Amino acid sequence: MKKVLIITVFTLFSLGVNAQKNKAKYSGYPITPVPFTAVKVTDNFWGQRLKASREVTIPLAFSKSEETGRYENFVKAAHPSEKYKVEGFSFDDTDVYKTIEGASYSLQTYPDKKLSKYIDSVLKIVAAAQEPDGYLYTSRTMNPKHPHAWSGDKRWVKEEDLSHELYNLGHMIEGAVAHYQATGKRNFLDIAIKYADCAESAIGSAQGKLTIVPGHQIAEMALAKLYIVTGDKKYLDLAKFFLDKRGYTKIKQEYSQSHKPVLKQDEAVGHAVRAAYMYSGMADVAALTGDTAYIHAIDQIWDNVVSKKLYITGGIGATHHGEAFGKAYELPNLTAYNETCAAIANVYWNHRLFLLHGDAKYYDVLERTLYNGLISGVSLDGGEFFYPNPLESDGIYKFNQQACTRQSWFGCACCPSNLSRFIPSLPGYVYAVKDNKVFVNLFMGSSSELSVNGKKVQIKQATAYPWDGNVKIEIIPQGKQSIALKIRIPGWVQGKVLPSDLYSFSDRQQLRFKIKLNGQPIDSKIENGYFTIERLWAKGDVVEVDFDMKARVVKANEKVKDDAGKIAFERGPIVYCAEWPDNSFAIHSVLLPSQPEIEVVNSPNMLHGIKQLKTQAQSLSVNDKGFLETKNVSLTLIPYYTWLHRGSGEMSVWLPQNVSAVKTPSKTNSK
Amino acid sequence: MKKVLIITVFTLFSLGVNAQKNKAKYSGYPITPVPFTAVKVTDNFWGQRLKASREVTIPLAFSKSEETGRYENFVKAAHPSEKYKVEGFSFDDTDVYKTIEGASYSLQTYPDKKLSKYIDSVLKIVAAAQEPDGYLYTSRTMNPKHPHAWSGDKRWVKEEDLSHELYNLGHMIEGAVAHYQATGKRNFLDIAIKYADCAESAIGSAQGKLTIVPGHQIAEMALAKLYIVTGDKKYLDLAKFFLDKRGYTKIKQEYSQSHKPVLKQDEAVGHAVRAAYMYSGMADVAALTGDTAYIHAIDQIWDNVVSKKLYITGGIGATHHGEAFGKAYELPNLTAYNETCAAIANVYWNHRLFLLHGDAKYYDVLERTLYNGLISGVSLDGGEFFYPNPLESDGIYKFNQQACTRQSWFGCACCPSNLSRFIPSLPGYVYAVKDNKVFVNLFMGSSSELSVNGKKVQIKQATAYPWDGNVKIEIIPQGKQSIALKIRIPGWVQGKVLPSDLYSFSDRQQLRFKIKLNGQPIDSKIENGYFTIERLWAKGDVVEVDFDMKARVVKANEKVKDDAGKIAFERGPIVYCAEWPDNSFAIHSVLLPSQPEIEVVNSPNMLHGIKQLKTQAQSLSVNDKGFLETKNVSLTLIPYYTWLHRGSGEMSVWLPQNVSAVKTPSKTNSK
Repeated sequence: MKKVLIITVFTLFSLGVNAQKNKAKYSGYPITPVPFTAVKVTDNFWGQRLKASREVTIPLAFSKSEETGRYENFVKAAHPSEKYKVEGFSFDDTDVYKTIEGASYSLQTYPDKKLSKYIDSVLKIVAAAQEPDGYLYTSRTMNPKHPHAWSGDKRWVKEEDLSHELYNLGHMIEGAVAHYQATGKRNFLDIAIKYADCAESAIGSAQGKLTIVPGHQIAEMALAKLYIVTGDKKYLDLAKFFLDKRGYTKIKQEYSQSHKPVLKQDEAVGHAVRAAYMYSGMADVAALTGDTAYIHAIDQIWDNVVSKKLYITGGIGATHHGEAFGKAYELPNLTAYNETCAAIANVYWNHRLFLLHGDAKYYDVLERTLYNGLISGVSLDGGEFFYPNPLESDGIYKFNQQACTRQSWFGCACCPSNLSRFIPSLPGYVYAVKDNKVFVNLFMGSSSELSVNGKKVQIKQATAYPWDGNVKIEIIPQGKQSIALKIRIPGWVQGKVLPSDLYSFSDRQQLRFKIKLNGQPIDSKIENGYFTIERLWAKGDVVEVDFDMKARVVKANEKVKDDAGKIAFERGPIVYCAEWPDNSFAIHSVLLPSQPEIEVVNSPNMLHGIKQLKTQAQSLSVNDKGFLETKNVSLTLIPYYTWLHRGSGEMSVWLPQNVSAVKTPSKTNSK
Repeated sequence: MKKVLIITVFTLFSLGVNAQKNKAKYSGYPITPVPFTAVKVTDNFWGQRLKASREVTIPLAFSKSEETGRYENFVKAAHPSEKYKVEGFSFDDTDVYKTIEGASYSLQTYPDKKLSKYIDSVLKIVAAAQEPDGYLYTSRTMNPKHPHAWSGDKRWVKEEDLSHELYNLGHMIEGAVAHYQATGKRNFLDIAIKYADCAESAIGSAQGKLTIVPGHQIAEMALAKLYIVTGDKKYLDLAKFFLDKRGYTKIKQEYSQSHKPVLKQDEAVGHAVRAAYMYSGMADVAALTGDTAYIHAIDQIWDNVVSKKLYITGGIGATHHGEAFGKAYELPNLTAYNETCAAIANVYWNHRLFLLHGDAKYYDVLERTLYNGLISGVSLDGGEFFYPNPLESDGIYKFNQQACTRQSWFGCACCPSNLSRFIPSLPGYVYAVKDNKVFVNLFMGSSSELSVNGKKVQIKQATAYPWDGNVKIEIIPQGKQSIALKIRIPGWVQGKVLPSDLYSFSDRQQLRFKIKLNGQPIDSKIENGYFTIERLWAKGDVVEVDFDMKARVVKANEKVKDDAGKIAFERGPIVYCAEWPDNSFAIHSVLLPSQPEIEVVNSPNMLHGIKQLKTQAQSLSVNDKGFLETKNVSLTLIPYYTWLHRGSGEMSVWLPQNVSAVKTPSKTNSK
C-alpha cells in the first residue's frame, strides 16, 4: 500500500496533474510549478541550449567522471584497501550523482535506452560501494584507516568542516529522486534512502544521536524532496533539524552560514552556493511545515542580496576568497567570483520565493540570472565552462582558476555537473499554476500541457524572445474553461532593473507594452508584476504580447564604487558587454557620451544568432608626448553570455561614461 | 653665585659663544645650533616674513588676546569669584605665553622699548593670577568651585584628559625662557619656575606624589629647557618622568601617544602636534641624559613618518578626526588636516634629530616643511592664518573650521600664536657648529657671527634662494682659521624628494650642482648630505654654490591611493600648486602629458615676488552630447604657500597625468 501511494504522489508532483489538489500535502508551496516534462521547448534560443546539454554537456560529464577516476572511487570503495590513496575532493562522488540527475531529466523528454542502460551500469558500481548500513562516501570507505584528508578518522566528525558526507547525501537524493521520477526504477532511490536512513539514525535530536549540521548545505532541500517522494516525515524532521541547529553547534562561521541561528540571519554572508542552497532549503521546509519564521528570515536576506549584493548579471558571490558574498555594495568586476553554481542556486532560491509569495519580482531576479550570469557559465556548444563569471576581463587576470579561458572540466567540477542537471530542468520554470491561475513566467517558444483545476489545458508560445518582444500565446482548453492567465510583465519593461535601487535605468521611464486578446487591445492593471486576463477561454483564443525591446542604459547605485562613472547596456532580459574581437580599440579606454544612441544590429550568423548593439563612443589614447587624443568610434556590444567564445582579451560589462572611470589609455605605437 | 652662573650659562647657550665647550653640559646635543640672534637675515624672501611677523602677526596676537578675553581671564583669576563663567578653551592662557615668546625673540633683534613695556604690563596681570603655591591656570583659579568643564574638580585630576594644566606650564616655560634670554629680566621666568615647582612638588616618583603624564605634551621640552637655564636637575627628572610613565597611567590612547610606553612606540599615531612635541621632548631628554633608547624609538618613528605619513609639503596629521596621523599611506588631499602647529612641531623634531645625528636628511624634511606646509599657514602679510593646510581645494569644502578661507584668528588660536613664536626664531635654523665644523643648513641672504673653536667667524650669505640656486658664502675669520665648512646639498638636488620612497622625481636623475672656492671649481664627495671644504680660511675667501633649479615632476608611491595617476611640480625647495585665478579652466579637469615641459616665469610683482611655472596641458570638458573634448591649454602653477591669497576656489598640488585621475569635467555651458 505504501509503495503504491509513493508512486502516485511522485506522478502527481512531477507531472503537475491535479497537483493543486495535493499541493499542501506534497510540496507545501501555495503555487505549483508546471514540471519540465509538461513543457516542450521549441525555440532556437533554448532549444539549442537543451540540445547542447543533452548531446554534449551530459556525455562529457559522464566521460570526465570516468576519465578522472570518479567511477573508480566507487569501485575501490566496494573493495577497500589500505593501499588506496584517497585523492581528489571529498565531494567528487557528487559529480556522478549530478550527472545522473541531469541525464534523468533528459531521459524524460528524450528517451534513450542506451543512456538508461549506461546509468544503470554506473548505479551498479555506486551500489557496490555502499556500506552495509547505508553509508556511502568513497573518500572514507575505500580506505577507512587513511581516509581523505578532509574526512576525519570517524564518520561525521569533520562534517561541519570539509568532509562533505551530508553534501554527498544531498546530491545523491536529488539525483536519485530525479532518476526515479524519470525511469520509475528504484535502483538509485533505494541507495539514497539507505544512506539517508544511515545518516538519520546517527544524527538528530533523539538521545544518543549526534547534533551536527551539514558543512555544505543541500541535504535540507534534498531531504524535503525525499519526504515528498516517500511520505516519511523523518526526512523532513532531519531537514528541519539541520536548519534549526545551525549556529548552535561547534563550528560557527560566516563561511557556512553557521555564525548565527538561521532565524537570526538577515544578511547574505559566506560561501554563496552554501548560502543560496540553505535559503532554498529553508523555503522548502517552511512550505512543508508552515513555519513562517523561516520565510521572514529568507525574505530579509533576499532584500539584502537584491539591494546590496547582486550583480547586474544576476551573479552572486563577489569575492574569490571563500567563494563568498562581499560586503554591502562590494561588487568588483575584474575579480568578481560569481560562481556558476551560485547562479544556479540563486535560480533555485528565487523560484521557491515565487512559489511562496506569487510575486513576479522573484522572477525578475531569476530571469536576469538565467539569461546572463548562469548561461554565461557554459559555452554555446555545451562543452566548455566557467567556474567564476566576472564582468570584466583584461585578458590576463586568471579568473578561471588557472586560466583566463573557458575550460572543459575542473579539478573541482561542481559547475559542469551542476549545469548538467540544471539546463535540462529549465522548461519547468516557464509556468506555474494555482487554482484557476496560470502564471506565464518565462517566454520561450514552446508547447505545453497544464492541468488547471483538474482540466487539461494546452498552451503554446510562439516567440523569438529574448531578441524580440512579441510573444504569441495560444490557449487551448478542452471546451470552455475559466482561467486567470497571469502574464508576467518583466521589471525591465516597468522601468526597474531590479526590485531595489541597486541599479537603475538612466531614463527611468517605463517601456511601452501592448497586449491583445484575439486581435483586440486589452488593458488591465499590473498586480504583483502580472497582467491578468481572467475569462472563459476557448480553443483558438490567442493573446499577443508585445514588449518594447528598446535598448537601455543602466547605472549602478553610487555606493557601488567599482561601477562609479560607468554605464552598462541592456536590451530585453539580456545584459550586454563589449569584447575585444568586435572593437578595434582598447575596451578599457573607451568613453561613452551622456546619452548614447543605441543601434540594434541583427547578427543571425554570429554566436548562434544574436543581436548586437552599436553606439557612438570615444576611444581615448595617448600620443608620443603623452597628450590625450580622442577618436570617435562605433562601439559594438554582444550579449554577456556569449563572451570568451573567440579567444581571451578585453571585455567589460560596465563602460566608462565619466572620464575618471577610464583606465590608462595605452600609448599609441607610433614609430 | 648660582644666579651668576645661570646668567652665564644662558648667555653662552643663547649666543653660541664658546658653546662647543659647554655643549655637553648645557644642551647635551653633540651639535650646537647658532642662535637666531647671531644671524641677521637680509634677503627678500625671509626678510619680508620676519617683518610681517614682527609688525603684524605678533601685534595681532596680542590684540586678539586682549579682544577675546584672554588677558581678562588672568585678571579674573587674580580675584576669583563664583560668578565667573569659565569659557573658551582650557589652554587659552598659552596664546599669551606664546605671543610673549615670539615678541621676546623679536626684541632680541629689533629692540623695542614700547613692546618691552607692553610685555611687562601683561606679565603683571599674569603674575597676579598665580596662586600662592605657584599654580597658574586661570580656567580653575578664577572660579575654583566651577572651573572649566575640562578641568576637573581638583588640580591635575583631568590632566591626562583635557585640562591642559601641564600644557599651560610648558608654554609658560618656553615663553619665560625666551623672555629671560631676550631681556635678562626674571619677571616671567620666576612665574614659570614657581609654577614648575608647584607641579614638581605634586607630580613625580617620590612617595605621595601623583603619577600622571601630560594630556598634551610640551612640558617635556620646556622642562629640559628650564633645566638648562636653571641648572636644577629636578626639572629634567620631571621631564623624564613624564616620558617614562606614559603608557603606564590611567589613560591609554593613541590620541595622546599613551597607548604604549614611549620606548615601545615605532609608529606615529594620534594627535600630530602632541606626537611631534613628544618626540622633540624625547630628543631633548636623550641629549641631556645620554639615553639612547629614546633615540632608537624616535629614529624608528621618524622612518615611519618619512616613508608613510608625510605630505609632499612636509605636513603631518592626515585626518581631521583627532587632528591625527592617518594610517600608512593615508594621505588625502582635499581633507588633509596638516595643522600649522604640526608643521612647526615637525620642524622642532627634525631640527633636534639633526643636532643628534648630524645628517642632512633631517634638514631635507625640515626645509620641505618650512618652505611649504609651514609658511602656507600664515598669509604673506602676516595677518591671516590657516589651521589645516590641505593640498587641494574645491572652493567649497570647509577645511578651515567654518570656512574655506584664511582667517585672522580662531576660537582655538594655537596656530596663530605658534606662528608668532616660530617665525622670529627662524634665523636660528641656518647654521650649526661642532668643533671646527660649520654646518650651512639653510640658504638665505644673511650676515652672521659664529663662534668656531672659540674664535669669532663672520659668515655672509648672498642669494635669491629659493628662486635662484646661486649662493655666495663669504667666510671672514679673525686671521687664518681651520674650519670644515659643511654645505648641505639638498636631497632634491641629489634626486631624492625625501629620504624614503614615499615620493620620487619622475626623471630620477641628480641635478647638476657646482661649487667654486675663490672662483675655482672644487670637488668633494658628499657625506651625510654635506659637501665639506676643510682648510685654513682667511678673510676674503668666497664659496660660490650653484644648485640647478630645474623644475621637476614628482610622483607618489603607488600605495598613496589619493595621488594615484597624479603628478606634482617642484622647483628648488618649493612645492607648486595650480590655483583658479591663474587658469581659465577647471583645475580638476586638467590632464598633464607624460613628460611636461616646464617653463619658469619670473613674476616679481606677484604675491610678494614669485616664480611661476607654466606647462602645456589639456583641459577636458564635455560637450552637449556628452562627448569629451580636449583643449590644449597652458597650465600655470604658483608656490603652494601662496595659495588662497586671492579668494577661494579650485586649487590642487597633485594634478592628473592619467585620465582616470581626472575629475568629472563639467559640461560646457553652451546655449
